[in-house]
Parts: sequence; structure tokens; C-alpha cells
Amino acid sequence: MHPSIIRPTLIINKDISQANIRRMASKAKASDVIFRPHFKTHQSLQVGNWFRDAGIDRITVSSLSMAKEFAEDGWRDITIAFPANIRETAEYNLLGSKIKLNLIIDSPEVAMHLAANINYPTGLFVEIDNGYGRSGVHHSDRDSLARIIEILDNAQHLLFVGFLTHAGNTYAASTKNEIEQIYSSSMQSMQQLKEKYPKASLSVGDTPSCSIVEDLGAADEIRPGNFVFYDLMQYYLGSCSINDIAVSVACPVTGIYPEREELVIYGGAVHLSKEYVEDGGKNYGLIVRYTEDGWTSPVPDTRLVSLSQEHGIIKTNPEFLQTVKHGDILGVLPIHSCLTANLLRDNVVVL
Amino acid sequence: MHPSIIRPTLIINKDISQANIRRMASKAKASDVIFRPHFKTHQSLQVGNWFRDAGIDRITVSSLSMAKEFAEDGWRDITIAFPANIRETAEYNLLGSKIKLNLIIDSPEVAMHLAANINYPTGLFVEIDNGYGRSGVHHSDRDSLARIIEILDNAQHLLFVGFLTHAGNTYAASTKNEIEQIYSSSMQSMQQLKEKYPKASLSVGDTPSCSIVEDLGAADEIRPGNFVFYDLMQYYLGSCSINDIAVSVACPVTGIYPEREELVIYGGAVHLSKEYVEDGGKNYGLIVRYTEDGWTSPVPDTRLVSLSQEHGIIKTNPEFLQTVKHGDILGVLPIHSCLTANLLRDNVVVL
Repeated sequence: MHPSIIRPTLIINKDISQANIRRMASKAKASDVIFRPHFKTHQSLQVGNWFRDAGIDRITVSSLSMAKEFAEDGWRDITIAFPANIRETAEYNLLGSKIKLNLIIDSPEVAMHLAANINYPTGLFVEIDNGYGRSGVHHSDRDSLARIIEILDNAQHLLFVGFLTHAGNTYAASTKNEIEQIYSSSMQSMQQLKEKYPKASLSVGDTPSCSIVEDLGAADEIRPGNFVFYDLMQYYLGSCSINDIAVSVACPVTGIYPEREELVIYGGAVHLSKEYVEDGGKNYGLIVRYTEDGWTSPVPDTRLVSLSQEHGIIKTNPEFLQTVKHGDILGVLPIHSCLTANLLRDNVVVL
Repeated sequence: MHPSIIRPTLIINKDISQANIRRMASKAKASDVIFRPHFKTHQSLQVGNWFRDAGIDRITVSSLSMAKEFAEDGWRDITIAFPANIRETAEYNLLGSKIKLNLIIDSPEVAMHLAANINYPTGLFVEIDNGYGRSGVHHSDRDSLARIIEILDNAQHLLFVGFLTHAGNTYAASTKNEIEQIYSSSMQSMQQLKEKYPKASLSVGDTPSCSIVEDLGAADEIRPGNFVFYDLMQYYLGSCSINDIAVSVACPVTGIYPEREELVIYGGAVHLSKEYVEDGGKNYGLIVRYTEDGWTSPVPDTRLVSLSQEHGIIKTNPEFLQTVKHGDILGVLPIHSCLTANLLRDNVVVL
């Protein structure tokens, strides 16, 4: 491991991440859909360049501040896939004067506000809720959709681009088959909307669906983000193999407790986030050792069982424990790479 | 609410926070113990100054980077209450050349490493595990303690200061009585150590114990941190009243869903953290309205039930829902203010 690592650091394996990017780009091409990757997972200009290398020029972000950061780095076609926040209208105008900006909305009230206050050509996706139950117009609520689209059509600077959905309910699925069913049911609703509004582009894309479904051609655009790194949540869902996970967090060992078969690492909730999976108890991450050019498979019978602000407690077996010394660097495969990468975005090493 | 608030922002109520500081400082004085507050909760130079105003000149932090930040702001006596990380030894020396630095250890191996590599006078607390089971020498392991103290006594630049413990198991208590019992049992173990090492200072201090126990005089020093803001976790534990919570997160409303009796706010896991309490379902925070000079009591039958990266879903009642408009600012009382303040430390407004 990099000798200069002294505190929790996000380690990105470039080869794995670039392979993940190429695989998704190829699938998008084979499915004949626009690939507009979500950059909220990595929030990194360097990783952004790997997408450029793969021919990508349209991106998705989840906040105005991310949009501004990537616009400054030369990205010229950005969708902010978070419901338009009318308090940020002045900043949407600033950004929209410089790049091709797309926003998303789900209410006539916000549509009217934007129609009256947006002064530069701005694309608008209407967000559709196909059963996830977070944001979006419910797909069956045709009256609201018609009202929103009418407002957009009459607005001087707003262009109705199409319908956008996020099937986040795939994250609660327990089998690949269930993920395919959620995707297929969501696409069915979207295509019914397209029958009514034939010019509307259909934008979809959570990482589980985009990883598991073979042909994504029923959509016009996909927006997965997490696949660039993947993580244990995706691995347990079946979206990726353990070898596709492109990030780990390098953590110094600060405590060894043979009588409890536990280790303490410098690596806690402010580095990894408190995301966990239930796995016969809370699992906050699996443990790897670093090698010359990457990391090993997860250490058997070993996982992060507890996190406080800066401490992580690893439960392990006596054999592994015997090999660990104070100051060793262990790697943690994170549960949710988006939250982990957000927390460590100022502390990154690329392998 | 401040008209310039356009995205999730930590709102600190100065009056409440200063009252919390004064109350704990008075209790420390009445108990005749050193008050060395933990600054990991706020990580703010401005809040640090409020402690200066209350006469505090010794502080606790949980990382070297925090120690450096506060040292640059003029703090001259700092304990890093996280097990010494031997990979940071060079930086401990840099800091130790400028201020009075205290570290904590729990193993002979780390004691030997520091004895050989620390070049400036540095105080050492031996961390004791009185049943929490995170880090620390188990209080019954007198052999390890004797070995560590011998190493410290023979080291040129290391000074054995005393024993330090964190009774983090109070966070799992369900009654005030249980918190008092944990504190009392932990103090009993600490005092047994003092009988053997009479010059050792005893440093204790989690917020639940320091808030609930009347007389803290059995210790020599207390190090609570969370009390500066408190939060819902402390409220449910009985450490504070709801009116003692000094922080809320101002979040714009971006979605209104009467049929689901739900609202969506711009405020997610990257602003609030995924910390929750179980309360007939996961509770990620309670909701308040802002007033001229603060905020209201929590809205009845209303709470944050789900968080994704940037979205928060609020389940509420039809009466409250009717009063909410797009672009309104709602306040979230956080579950765990340390993690929330860490995430929002670049986006703070002080009332």
C-alpha cells in the first residue's frame, strides 16, 4: 500500500472503474440509447475524464453545485436529476446562460414558477413515479401531466424534453428476477406515456436495472451512476461481481483485541457513512488487504460490525487477527460507494 | 427564515448553544473537575470562541486534522481522544512542538513506538474499556496497564497523565437510571485504578452521563461534546429537553404529495447522515417551522421517514401538508448532530 497513507483514504482502482465504464457504454450502444451517466457517485473531475475518454458528453448530477463544478470543467450538457428547487432559480439562469441545462419537475406550481422566471433555453423532464414513491407525478395521474406539459409548451424558454424516472425500488429487491420485473413494469408505464406524447424522450436508469437487464432499448436514455464504482450493496443485489467493485477505503489499524477477536481501525461514520446491510447483524463493510496493484478478496468471516464518528470495529477470526499489526493498512469495501466517496472526496488516491 | 437560504443549511441557535455551554461549565465547576469539551461535534472556530468566552482553554478533538485546525486558531492544550495512530507520528511531533498535546493509547506496542519516535513533551492518557467494548485496555487487565505505564515512565518525552474512558454504552441505555448505573460502574473501575496509581488523572465524559449525573466530582476531568448542540438521540435518551437542541437543518420543500400525505425536501443523507432512531419505523428527524428568532416545537405526527443521497421524505398529516408550499423552508431536528454538523460544516448560519 502507498506508504504515504496515514488516514482514511478512498482508493480508486482505475482499471476496474474504466472497465465498468466501458461495459455500461457498450451496453448503451448495443441498446441504442443515450448514455448520460450520473456523476453524483464519484463527484470527481478525474473520473469524469475517464467518461470523456469513453466518448461521453452528456451527464447527470444531483445538485446545482455539482452541475456548476462540472460545467467549469468543460461539461456542456447537464441534467440536474433532482426536483427543481425554486429557491435556486437565479442560479439555474446563471448556469443556463452558459451550458445546455436540463431540469426535472413534478408539479404545475413549479412549472409555472419556472415558466415565469427562467430566462435561458432550458430543457425540462417531467419526473414520473412508477411505484418507487419518492418524487415524481404518479404515472396514472394523466391530468397533472397534461397540465404541466401545457405550461411548458406555452413557456418562452422552457422545452419539454420527455419523461424521467428513477426505479429506486430495485434497491429493495431480493432477486435479479425481481429487479427485471420492476424495470419492466416501470418501462411499461413509461411507454404508455410515450403513446400519448410520441416526441417525449424516456430517461431511466438505476444501476441495478442497467446492470442486470440485457436490452435497455425500450428507453431513449439511461442515467446509472453507481456502476462506476459499484459497492457491496450492488454486489448483494446481484448487479456486479465482487471483482467489479472499484473503490475501497484504506484505514490504519489502531487497536488489536485478541480476546474479543476484534480490531479497531481509524475509519468511522465520517469516512464511510452509516449505511449498512442486514446480514445476520449490521454489516458496515467487508475487509481486504492491499496488494502490489490492488486488493485481495474479502477476508473470510470478517466484517465491520460497528461505526462511531471516527472508529470502526472489525469482528474477525483468530487466524487473520494474528497477521495484523498496529499501523497496518486494511481496506474496507464500502456498502454504499456514493455516500463514502462524497465523504472522502478530498482524500483520494487513484491506483 | 433567512431569505438567502437556498439549499440545506445548518442553523445554529447561538442563545441555546451558549446556554448549553454555560450549564455544563457550571456543573463542571460545581463538581470541581476540569472541563475539556470535545470539539468534534461542532468543528467550528466560531463555536470554539463561545467556549473561550466561558473560560475554557483546554479542549478535546477526535482527529489530528481537527487538532491542527484548532491549534492554528490559538488553542494551546489539546487532547486527541482517538487511539494514537502510529502512521501519524511525524505530524504528532509537528503539533507537539507548538502546543501542549495529549494522546491516548491502549497497547504496549504503540507505547513503545511513541517512546522511540516522539521528540517533544507529550501527555499520554491510557484509555480504559469499562464495558463499552470499542477501544481501551480492559479495566481488569492490570498486567497490560502496568507494562504500558512502565514504558511511558521510561520514555524521554512521554508523560503518563492518567486514565481516560468513554462510556459510549450509555447511548444504548433506555432509562436515565440505566445511564447513571453505567456511569457509576465505570467510575468505580476508574477509581480502583487510581488507588493503584494515585497520581493518575481520571478523564471521563460522554454527553448522556455528563448531562444526567448530578455530581461528576469522582472524575478529575470531563470531556462531553454533543451537549453543545444536543439532538434527538439525546432527547430520547433523556439527556436534554427538546428546547435544548441548538441546531436544525433548513431544507427547501421540493415536492408535495397530498395523496401519500408526504413531502419531499432537499435534504438527504449527504446533509443529515443516515443515522436514525427506531420509533415504530425509522425516524431520521423531526420537522419544525422557523420563526422570527428560532424555530417551533416539532410538528405533530410528522417525521422524516426516508433519506436518499439528496432527498428526504417527510410523512405528515393532512392539516400540516395543507400549509406547505413549494420553496418553503422546513427545519429538521437531526438525530445525531455530530454527523450532521460534520456534513454541513461549510454551510452554516448562526441565528
